[in-house]
Amino acid sequence: MKLTHLNEKNNPKMVDVGNKTPSTRVANASGIIAMSREAYEAVLNQNNKKGAVIQTAIIAGIMGAKKTHELIPMCHPLFISGIDIEVMQNDEKYEFKLIARVKTEGKTGVEMEALCAVSTALLTFYDMLKAIDKTMVIKDIQLESKTGGKSGDFKR
Amino acid sequence: MKLTHLNEKNNPKMVDVGNKTPSTRVANASGIIAMSREAYEAVLNQNNKKGAVIQTAIIAGIMGAKKTHELIPMCHPLFISGIDIEVMQNDEKYEFKLIARVKTEGKTGVEMEALCAVSTALLTFYDMLKAIDKTMVIKDIQLESKTGGKSGDFKR
Amino acid sequence: MKLTHLNEKNNPKMVDVGNKTPSTRVANASGIIAMSREAYEAVLNQNNKKGAVIQTAIIAGIMGAKKTHELIPMCHPLFISGIDIEVMQNDEKYEFKLIARVKTEGKTGVEMEALCAVSTALLTFYDMLKAIDKTMVIKDIQLESKTGGKSGDFKR
Amino acid sequence: MKLTHLNEKNNPKMVDVGNKTPSTRVANASGIIAMSREAYEAVLNQNNKKGAVIQTAIIAGIMGAKKTHELIPMCHPLFISGIDIEVMQNDEKYEFKLIARVKTEGKTGVEMEALCAVSTALLTFYDMLKAIDKTMVIKDIQLESKTGGKSGDFKR
Amino acid sequence: MKLTHLNEKNNPKMVDVGNKTPSTRVANASGIIAMSREAYEAVLNQNNKKGAVIQTAIIAGIMGAKKTHELIPMCHPLFISGIDIEVMQNDEKYEFKLIARVKTEGKTGVEMEALCAVSTALLTFYDMLKAIDKTMVIKDIQLESKTGGKSGDFKR
Amino acid sequence: MKLTHLNEKNNPKMVDVGNKTPSTRVANASGIIAMSREAYEAVLNQNNKKGAVIQTAIIAGIMGAKKTHELIPMCHPLFISGIDIEVMQNDEKYEFKLIARVKTEGKTGVEMEALCAVSTALLTFYDMLKAIDKTMVIKDIQLESKTGGKSGDFKR
Repeated sequence: MKLTHLNEKNNPKMVDVGNKTPSTRVANASGIIAMSREAYEAVLNQNNKKGAVIQTAIIAGIMGAKKTHELIPMCHPLFISGIDIEVMQNDEKYEFKLIARVKTEGKTGVEMEALCAVSTALLTFYDMLKAIDKTMVIKDIQLESKTGGKSGDFKR
Repeated sequence: MKLTHLNEKNNPKMVDVGNKTPSTRVANASGIIAMSREAYEAVLNQNNKKGAVIQTAIIAGIMGAKKTHELIPMCHPLFISGIDIEVMQNDEKYEFKLIARVKTEGKTGVEMEALCAVSTALLTFYDMLKAIDKTMVIKDIQLESKTGGKSGDFKR
Repeated sequence: MKLTHLNEKNNPKMVDVGNKTPSTRVANASGIIAMSREAYEAVLNQNNKKGAVIQTAIIAGIMGAKKTHELIPMCHPLFISGIDIEVMQNDEKYEFKLIARVKTEGKTGVEMEALCAVSTALLTFYDMLKAIDKTMVIKDIQLESKTGGKSGDFKR
Repeated sequence: MKLTHLNEKNNPKMVDVGNKTPSTRVANASGIIAMSREAYEAVLNQNNKKGAVIQTAIIAGIMGAKKTHELIPMCHPLFISGIDIEVMQNDEKYEFKLIARVKTEGKTGVEMEALCAVSTALLTFYDMLKAIDKTMVIKDIQLESKTGGKSGDFKR
Repeated sequence: MKLTHLNEKNNPKMVDVGNKTPSTRVANASGIIAMSREAYEAVLNQNNKKGAVIQTAIIAGIMGAKKTHELIPMCHPLFISGIDIEVMQNDEKYEFKLIARVKTEGKTGVEMEALCAVSTALLTFYDMLKAIDKTMVIKDIQLESKTGGKSGDFKR
Repeated sequence: MKLTHLNEKNNPKMVDVGNKTPSTRVANASGIIAMSREAYEAVLNQNNKKGAVIQTAIIAGIMGAKKTHELIPMCHPLFISGIDIEVMQNDEKYEFKLIARVKTEGKTGVEMEALCAVSTALLTFYDMLKAIDKTMVIKDIQLESKTGGKSGDFKR
């Protein structure tokens, strides 16, 4: 199977999307960070006051999505028209699950932007909490759904 | 438990490490991307020729580590003195496992740099292969070990 | 009053502008730096020769405007179609007043880009002159006017 | 008076600080944003819940300080060892005053980093509130104090 | 002859392209790096295995093209729709010649993006090989052709 | 001959310089842009007034040097302690020759920083003048000399 990101000499290239039709595209990606009870409660206690950890992670995720084309070598720069990140608690497993929704109107999809948003936000959780728990695990970063574009809709 | 990244008003701050003693610090982080057999074989067939996917991911990981302080809001900029990323195949599970080793001599550790290296490299795998498989999952991003610094060594 | 940059959980989001109609948008912003006579004359003496301070500030302002979406967390990346910065002398007060005019054709305005241009250019004046005068004050950074977009025109 | 940032041909240069002695350096800078009562109360009402505006501004300020050498053409890149930003309310004038404290151990001071932190944070206030009030004014951005370095201490 | 990048006061400005008609634009740029036989063979021996030097240079060139508007002060940010870099060997002269092809649909051309791609890729060759040969020379960076835009097609 | 930037699997790595001794390091690099008489005179006529082209190129070169570790994948981030760029006219050949001098105190050299400074400045000349002459050629980018570091001094 030929990889789209390689040219005929098998060197990386940025795929030519010039002939694609611009359309509205949305991608949702999710990911989880699992932590100790102590770290989990530090987030929530904090949360009752100012939500510093959660909000810092959300802001980092939004800014990280805007950096996607700088981080992922073959990604196209694009106009992101909206980003929203939701944080869900799992009080039994001491986990936070993040869902990022990214939207654009253009010639390329925003799957990578949604994945970068989730990934950067989860890493920020790690950074804010690593003094309490170094064993935290980031897991299950995956595309939940996408709409728009020639390759059609995708739903996990 | 007080979070080190918050000030007395519970607003985020960049921790003052000015009084810490510079020392040699090393961090190892790992992470996995699981994919379909078809995607897995596309990487390896490619690999037999020029290793385009693996090498692009490694380069992205190294460059991503250098961007850590731009991505993670409370991270200190620092001098990275070395980065090496290893890619391991799991032919039975169709997974690639990455291990990033980052080194510095300074006042702060490089756990976040190692985690960012792994995370960016795994996202690059996803980007290069998403035309073949959109269901890939990035998982088990975690700190394997760290040495140096006042908080002492850590081994998972 | 609901803030547009917050979602229903009061966490920051990048507003969805996907449904807005693209239009030509222009924003003008201004700001002032007040300094000692000695610093003021150093700029002008220099100016008679090569205008190094003023021109460095203008270039920094133009480049700063292009970084707006990296600096301001909830700002959309956008295509800037033109930037021009004017520098006006006030020989009596030893002040320089800057006016930045930024233009785009898109779904979001360029107020923040014009304000970032002015702000970065003024900070560059400060940097170039701080060896002479550390008491300089940057003041009156404000939007002068904007045209285009659904919210209509604005004139101070 | 010769400007340190110009070479003998009056072209800009990055000053050679190679022979300076590294020392602990701290800079404090402040700045104010004045707004309508309506905007002011939107921040505080918000603040009672999650402090979204204030916290987003603080995070932007910290990240902006780290970008100083990218924004200000002749600034040296440096290792910032700590950043803290304080936000003070003025309920009578509907103003927020920000004070940024930046610290380093090195060969150059962090005045510009402190000024960039304040400036970026104030611009973020503007961005978050501009849907309510476009007439806000950013003012009185100035260096409050600095310690360390050959040129000695400064206090406004 | 008036320079388009200067305003009426001879200060730099970003040219207003707002009234230009968007069109498909392509630019090809080339450049050469000449090196010792020893360095040349190190690339090729390497190439037989994994092509590490060539591929790292190509990736750097693609990422460098995306940074054009950050590097070149008066360049507009734009949507790049495709980048491909070809590397040609000259076994007699121990030279590599690179050709970058960049495409966009927009209001400004991509000459600078193609030149930045070539330039960054050539510098990366230098970096990867400088331990073997410090006398390498980068030369003949030039625009080969451009199509699209009001100023018409160009062919060297 | 083994390339230092490759690991035992021939994948790129950032060389570990942790054990190197910090020292003062200086690098000088040069490069030339050749142009038509018309373009050449446009620079100089401009130069008689405000030197806009030359000064913009110098500023771009200084800022480009600071971006070296973002552009060149395996380059270490480092503290640059000084940058100076000289521009020399060749009135007979209609060429400008640039020499960049970069200095650091650290564990790695600044050859790449000096080469990036020259390269970015020359590309900026091209950008500022391309409306007059698209046939300009950038050539002879090379390291002139370096001092400091274990590999010893180099002089072309």
